[in-house]
Amino acid sequence: MSKLRLKISMSLDGYVAGPDQSLENPLGVGGMRLHEWVLPLAAWRGEHGMEGGEVNESTAVVEESVRNLGATIMGRNMFGGHPGPWDAKKPWSGWWGAKPPFHHPVFVLTHHARPPLAMEGGTTFTFVTDGIESALRKARAAAGGKDISLAGGAKAAQQYLKAGLVDQMEIHVAPTLLGAGERLFDGVGDDLHGLRLVRTVAAPDVTHLKFAR
Amino acid sequence: MSKLRLKISMSLDGYVAGPDQSLENPLGVGGMRLHEWVLPLAAWRGEHGMEGGEVNESTAVVEESVRNLGATIMGRNMFGGHPGPWDAKKPWSGWWGAKPPFHHPVFVLTHHARPPLAMEGGTTFTFVTDGIESALRKARAAAGGKDISLAGGAKAAQQYLKAGLVDQMEIHVAPTLLGAGERLFDGVGDDLHGLRLVRTVAAPDVTHLKFAR
Repeated sequence: MSKLRLKISMSLDGYVAGPDQSLENPLGVGGMRLHEWVLPLAAWRGEHGMEGGEVNESTAVVEESVRNLGATIMGRNMFGGHPGPWDAKKPWSGWWGAKPPFHHPVFVLTHHARPPLAMEGGTTFTFVTDGIESALRKARAAAGGKDISLAGGAKAAQQYLKAGLVDQMEIHVAPTLLGAGERLFDGVGDDLHGLRLVRTVAAPDVTHLKFAR
Repeated sequence: MSKLRLKISMSLDGYVAGPDQSLENPLGVGGMRLHEWVLPLAAWRGEHGMEGGEVNESTAVVEESVRNLGATIMGRNMFGGHPGPWDAKKPWSGWWGAKPPFHHPVFVLTHHARPPLAMEGGTTFTFVTDGIESALRKARAAAGGKDISLAGGAKAAQQYLKAGLVDQMEIHVAPTLLGAGERLFDGVGDDLHGLRLVRTVAAPDVTHLKFAR
């Protein structure tokens, strides 16, 4: 069966977003420090339509993380825009411009219903209002046997982790402190539901920890 | 100058002790899971007077962590026993029996004065009531040019980290969740005071992250 795979960058003190998230600062104060390791990589730049970049120990991890994916699940906060009901006149269409880098169906967890949104390049955002298990069923049906990426943010990850629905997780530990913000494991409890550390990759400015059942 | 070196085991969700610490369960509920990686090692067993054991990728890390140390600093909670004033009739003398594994001067941060306590094997516990900087000065004077181990627990580590007095830190990340307890970085803020990740060691059931200036 297709796997649900969480990948997320986390600070040494456990945060996946800084405090005071806003439209101007979607990752919160200091949150960009979690992603400094990925931005110079050719593998990441290529995914986002840019040329050039570095090749290092993180390259294979990033390449693996986008391989064999047929669908993505994300929380409303990661899709972004604003809290509460969608703006009827000018509905938010994501952070990623006209051609988002997913190129497959994306399921957004939200309390506010909305018709699907088809973008260029094969990305369609479908808004799911009946919970994480429904979103996972829809994503699995759409993925055509491939795996499903759980893209975050914190609250979406916490719900799937707590329910024991995550089959693989890759945590990119950034060697920095945020001191406040959203913690990946808040409220998850002490049960990893059989996920075990299966690989550690030491790379410049990041340590990749892969967990699988 | 001699370095202040913190070494501590931390869960994936950031805890260095579980909840509900007690005399019977000094590491708190689940806290022993943080240390499962070290107990089978010949390097650890030898330090504690036992023969045999394993050699693996953690061995060099453990051996390095006890090399060139001339003194240790720890918090009252790690020295243990009970909170508040010392029992005058039967004063607590530590968790480690008659011959503790330090074999050098140990400085215990406490609010309650007490005469020094000399144990077998070269360990003397000195109780410091005037704060972390005083304890560091005393430890440095006693260490004779060697380094000083900051042994924990969480509150002692937090105070030295926040003050920017830690010169090296080795965090043993255990791939497990505790869900509650004492977090290493609570209240430390977002400043590592120049500590940077300088080495990652992948080992069975643990990832060692070494930070230095």
